[in-house]
Amino acid sequence: MIQAAIVGANGYTGFELMRLLASHPQVKLTAAVSRSNAGVPVADLYPPLRFAYGDMAFSAADVSQLKGVDVCFTALPHAASAEIGGQLHDMGVKVIDLSADFRYDSLELYQSTYKVTHPRPELNAQAVYGLPELFRDKIRAASIVGNPGCYTTCSILALYPLLKEGLIGRDGIIIDAKSGVTGAGRKADLAYNLCEASENFKAYGVTTHRHTTEIEEKLGVSLSFTPHLLPVKRGILATVYVECTASDADIQAAYDKYYKNERFVFASPMLPELHHVRGSNCCAIGYKLDPRLKRVILVSVIDNLIKGASGQAIQNMNILFGLDEGLGLPLVGEYL
Amino acid sequence: MIQAAIVGANGYTGFELMRLLASHPQVKLTAAVSRSNAGVPVADLYPPLRFAYGDMAFSAADVSQLKGVDVCFTALPHAASAEIGGQLHDMGVKVIDLSADFRYDSLELYQSTYKVTHPRPELNAQAVYGLPELFRDKIRAASIVGNPGCYTTCSILALYPLLKEGLIGRDGIIIDAKSGVTGAGRKADLAYNLCEASENFKAYGVTTHRHTTEIEEKLGVSLSFTPHLLPVKRGILATVYVECTASDADIQAAYDKYYKNERFVFASPMLPELHHVRGSNCCAIGYKLDPRLKRVILVSVIDNLIKGASGQAIQNMNILFGLDEGLGLPLVGEYL
Amino acid sequence: MIQAAIVGANGYTGFELMRLLASHPQVKLTAAVSRSNAGVPVADLYPPLRFAYGDMAFSAADVSQLKGVDVCFTALPHAASAEIGGQLHDMGVKVIDLSADFRYDSLELYQSTYKVTHPRPELNAQAVYGLPELFRDKIRAASIVGNPGCYTTCSILALYPLLKEGLIGRDGIIIDAKSGVTGAGRKADLAYNLCEASENFKAYGVTTHRHTTEIEEKLGVSLSFTPHLLPVKRGILATVYVECTASDADIQAAYDKYYKNERFVFASPMLPELHHVRGSNCCAIGYKLDPRLKRVILVSVIDNLIKGASGQAIQNMNILFGLDEGLGLPLVGEYL
Amino acid sequence: MIQAAIVGANGYTGFELMRLLASHPQVKLTAAVSRSNAGVPVADLYPPLRFAYGDMAFSAADVSQLKGVDVCFTALPHAASAEIGGQLHDMGVKVIDLSADFRYDSLELYQSTYKVTHPRPELNAQAVYGLPELFRDKIRAASIVGNPGCYTTCSILALYPLLKEGLIGRDGIIIDAKSGVTGAGRKADLAYNLCEASENFKAYGVTTHRHTTEIEEKLGVSLSFTPHLLPVKRGILATVYVECTASDADIQAAYDKYYKNERFVFASPMLPELHHVRGSNCCAIGYKLDPRLKRVILVSVIDNLIKGASGQAIQNMNILFGLDEGLGLPLVGEYL
Repeated sequence: MIQAAIVGANGYTGFELMRLLASHPQVKLTAAVSRSNAGVPVADLYPPLRFAYGDMAFSAADVSQLKGVDVCFTALPHAASAEIGGQLHDMGVKVIDLSADFRYDSLELYQSTYKVTHPRPELNAQAVYGLPELFRDKIRAASIVGNPGCYTTCSILALYPLLKEGLIGRDGIIIDAKSGVTGAGRKADLAYNLCEASENFKAYGVTTHRHTTEIEEKLGVSLSFTPHLLPVKRGILATVYVECTASDADIQAAYDKYYKNERFVFASPMLPELHHVRGSNCCAIGYKLDPRLKRVILVSVIDNLIKGASGQAIQNMNILFGLDEGLGLPLVGEYL
Repeated sequence: MIQAAIVGANGYTGFELMRLLASHPQVKLTAAVSRSNAGVPVADLYPPLRFAYGDMAFSAADVSQLKGVDVCFTALPHAASAEIGGQLHDMGVKVIDLSADFRYDSLELYQSTYKVTHPRPELNAQAVYGLPELFRDKIRAASIVGNPGCYTTCSILALYPLLKEGLIGRDGIIIDAKSGVTGAGRKADLAYNLCEASENFKAYGVTTHRHTTEIEEKLGVSLSFTPHLLPVKRGILATVYVECTASDADIQAAYDKYYKNERFVFASPMLPELHHVRGSNCCAIGYKLDPRLKRVILVSVIDNLIKGASGQAIQNMNILFGLDEGLGLPLVGEYL
Repeated sequence: MIQAAIVGANGYTGFELMRLLASHPQVKLTAAVSRSNAGVPVADLYPPLRFAYGDMAFSAADVSQLKGVDVCFTALPHAASAEIGGQLHDMGVKVIDLSADFRYDSLELYQSTYKVTHPRPELNAQAVYGLPELFRDKIRAASIVGNPGCYTTCSILALYPLLKEGLIGRDGIIIDAKSGVTGAGRKADLAYNLCEASENFKAYGVTTHRHTTEIEEKLGVSLSFTPHLLPVKRGILATVYVECTASDADIQAAYDKYYKNERFVFASPMLPELHHVRGSNCCAIGYKLDPRLKRVILVSVIDNLIKGASGQAIQNMNILFGLDEGLGLPLVGEYL
Repeated sequence: MIQAAIVGANGYTGFELMRLLASHPQVKLTAAVSRSNAGVPVADLYPPLRFAYGDMAFSAADVSQLKGVDVCFTALPHAASAEIGGQLHDMGVKVIDLSADFRYDSLELYQSTYKVTHPRPELNAQAVYGLPELFRDKIRAASIVGNPGCYTTCSILALYPLLKEGLIGRDGIIIDAKSGVTGAGRKADLAYNLCEASENFKAYGVTTHRHTTEIEEKLGVSLSFTPHLLPVKRGILATVYVECTASDADIQAAYDKYYKNERFVFASPMLPELHHVRGSNCCAIGYKLDPRLKRVILVSVIDNLIKGASGQAIQNMNILFGLDEGLGLPLVGEYL
């Protein structure tokens, strides 16, 4: 059994890790660390956890006590996450970091995007970007994985094959993305009160959202990225507009080249809906050509808490430890 | 034109008063007082208000500056509301209070329920309970109106005629009530975050909710009252269980006696749904006899922000000033 | 009092007309025609209507019996609507048509878009496009008004001033629009079942939605229009991407030129949210420049059933009859 | 590997069976039978199934072709289900029936409740009521299991221990239950259109709902059962009112006696919320004494599609085949 720990376990991605790991046959969760909730039973914050974890409590944040665990998921605010993750790495623990701290190749881009100084620049150089369908081989050998952002995963999986195969224009790309409210994390904030957020819809972070630079770096292009807040709990749908004169067959061939043998990614001309993947670790991609305007419109969907965060982190863990990549990960979305 | 002011205007009932008063042909809102938001444009908190109030800002809480207004709606926390309301009364301003401070006949019951000392007991003795369909004549002559609670309005309108006419048992009454999230007011509270409240449902305040004593006092009975939180914005539906061996005709006759000429209350054997009244000042009541178990089941619905708060307050104002009772009040619920 | 009738009154826009007209001080609804529901009380389909219309029933579809009404709102499927509307026009009744039949200047474009032959081409030439903020003078003199589509209203109000003033590029415009489910009308269709549509989100009609040609004709440009289905009841938000190197001041000046004195349209740099206008006849427009990519991103919101259909129809009626343009129309959105 | 089939696989419980069985390590689904959708890929109706079942199609309804499967889940309308289930039983297939056909001890009560003649009364006498926490030993030896109703499971698990231990009154029990819309099944029905069902709430089937007799038979009492339709997809919460003068300790002891070692049932004084169990096979029960009124108020929650239908059916299958009872069943609710 792999011994795993979570640091920053009280947030929504922490809960989702605990929920998914509860049914992982090869992992034992040895510690759920939360400084602010140390000593509090995990079921007090998240009552469903009682059925799997009984009276287990969040533990205090002493990294040294995590010595001996095989892997640690770090889910802290940026900069803090790299610092704790770095200490764990120094102790020989494999680190899967859910913050932005180990996602960027360019330290400058990270630092200008997040307005912080990276606490462990030398480790950043070793870290691997944890998008398994594109970078599986590197992940296998990594000791630190930078788990991608949710919007980023959804956007990159849709665009990467078409850009690599030269089927679409590199200029003028527009990503109009819509996310459920869990994307904002566990927060007592009036803007997310049901009275303010349900039966509502809005754009936010227009021209300034931090996932823009992460997407741009991984794809090597400049683009418009506009996130919106959907009145749903989970899920991201990105509608992507790009210049294209290729055929359906070309597009499908490009996707097949990258994803044909992937169990969690499916691309076809059928435009997917949010509830096709919600509750699963899957990404579904659809496309529709518009020959009149020489464009293709892509639609890409994921569950932001699973493929966009905790599920992908577990997928990375499975790769790191040579396990079947799908262990513990839901394959069929809940739909209802 | 009647000059009106609101004290405690920044909350949801304050917003709803401003929204409804914007289309009232006989009222001018001269001040929207909010200590915590003094100087802030009302449209900053509630952008829809811009279309009616332009750049109007919340004003600071100096009661003396309200001298000369005809009526003031007070919507402050209990005890604070009676204190400010009392000062306004002393200045000759008619007061419609949306807190619990002027709702009780019994000071003891109020004080034991709300755990405060009433700041103006002598005014409480003069105040009138503002449920127009039952106490219209007293309201007409009042200078202070205690606007009823939301759960209370919904429950009393359903039970009062049947109890008065002796058609139902006085023991064993159970009110199982369900309210939308606006009932909790404008709050940055994790429990009301869309992620926690949508696709969820729960009972709360079981055996302890403060509206219990208000209902019991007005009806003169003891009963179980259990509120639940619905994943909707607005509206209350109460399902009421009472012993009954009367006939449909008896029940209908009792309701007709009290409500036949009421424009805002409708009772029939058809069980109403929340969206039959949401967005209106109406209360719809339905009933279904269960001869097998010698019971009748009542279903009563209102919009908690309108008939359960701000709309009823305006209805009371219309009565106080001899206006048509329906002025400025939505008669047809939005349904969609 | 203006005598008004509605033909096709059983749909959601018919209900919304009845709901709004109930509080219009200068209009009496003399007939709510519905062939499929003739004889059925309007309150059987829409219980909230009981409070204003009592036992009034839908009437059968005999146009000749509408002789003498001043105005008729026609809300039938396309082609059928123009035929009935044409007969009413021949009888001297002013017609406000909520279908697509009288919206297009070009008969060819209408016919190729809707795959029908226009039954009254000569009347189409007389009809006026009922977008009051842009075509008020023509509406005043019209006898037939083609009430604009919902997506169309939202899109045109945002783009028209900027195109007219030459501030934005005419190529490469992208409208990514999101609508509530009422936009699909009153339908027993599995796709709109709450189980399938809530906690879901999807694009539909990609590259083929019929409002595309209506928008393109009125603006004189070619563009991408992609509608999506939001899990809300009401409201449209359109996010619009256009090439632009103008300044904030230029943009604001262009909007001010067209809308400064409009009570129902407001444009500012603040990006509006759906609940800023839901429940009102208002359109709110916001803009954000992206100098890095030489673009501007516009966000425009309306209530699809009010400004996007029935409210705008009443606004047109007010203009046709020389009434105050805002009579009977909600100015302050419900927000909650 | 156990060979399993589903008859009536196109409904929501059929989908949920397919979704859950996809991650069951000991079961292979050999046929998903749907007469109305024979030949249609399962992923056409339910796109998430593609990730587990690829291009598998629904098969036609020839029972004889199911010879050799170990177990069949029948999810057809009542009477039809018993007929097909009976044929399968005759072929030696173990049957887990999700209709009401094998739930009742009393044929008369079944027939008067469902207004049909039972097609296989002799088999009904052999069938076992599939509520594992109460009847596990009988299930182990059964060849036909009548899988309990959703409301029924939720209600019986809360009341059974307290009635058996004599802690509560047998008269005057009231169950006020609230269910998500999936409880109505997969239907193109206007009443379940998001426009009609979201931001709405209603009682239905008042005094007449068919689950009443099922609950009454299993508990041996007469009671009021009132279902309501919640604007959520999944989950049932039942609020139960019963006469009681016992103590908290008595209540807890009674629940412990029955559930202490049950992994899927948890009872405590904490009142559970819908999202504590949604997405899991668990039932959570809470209680609050009201000494003033000599009552106890119970709150019981389940996921209607899992513990209330398909999950419980799989739990029964695990018991029938001597597997670990929790195999393939989600233990931790999704909460978010």
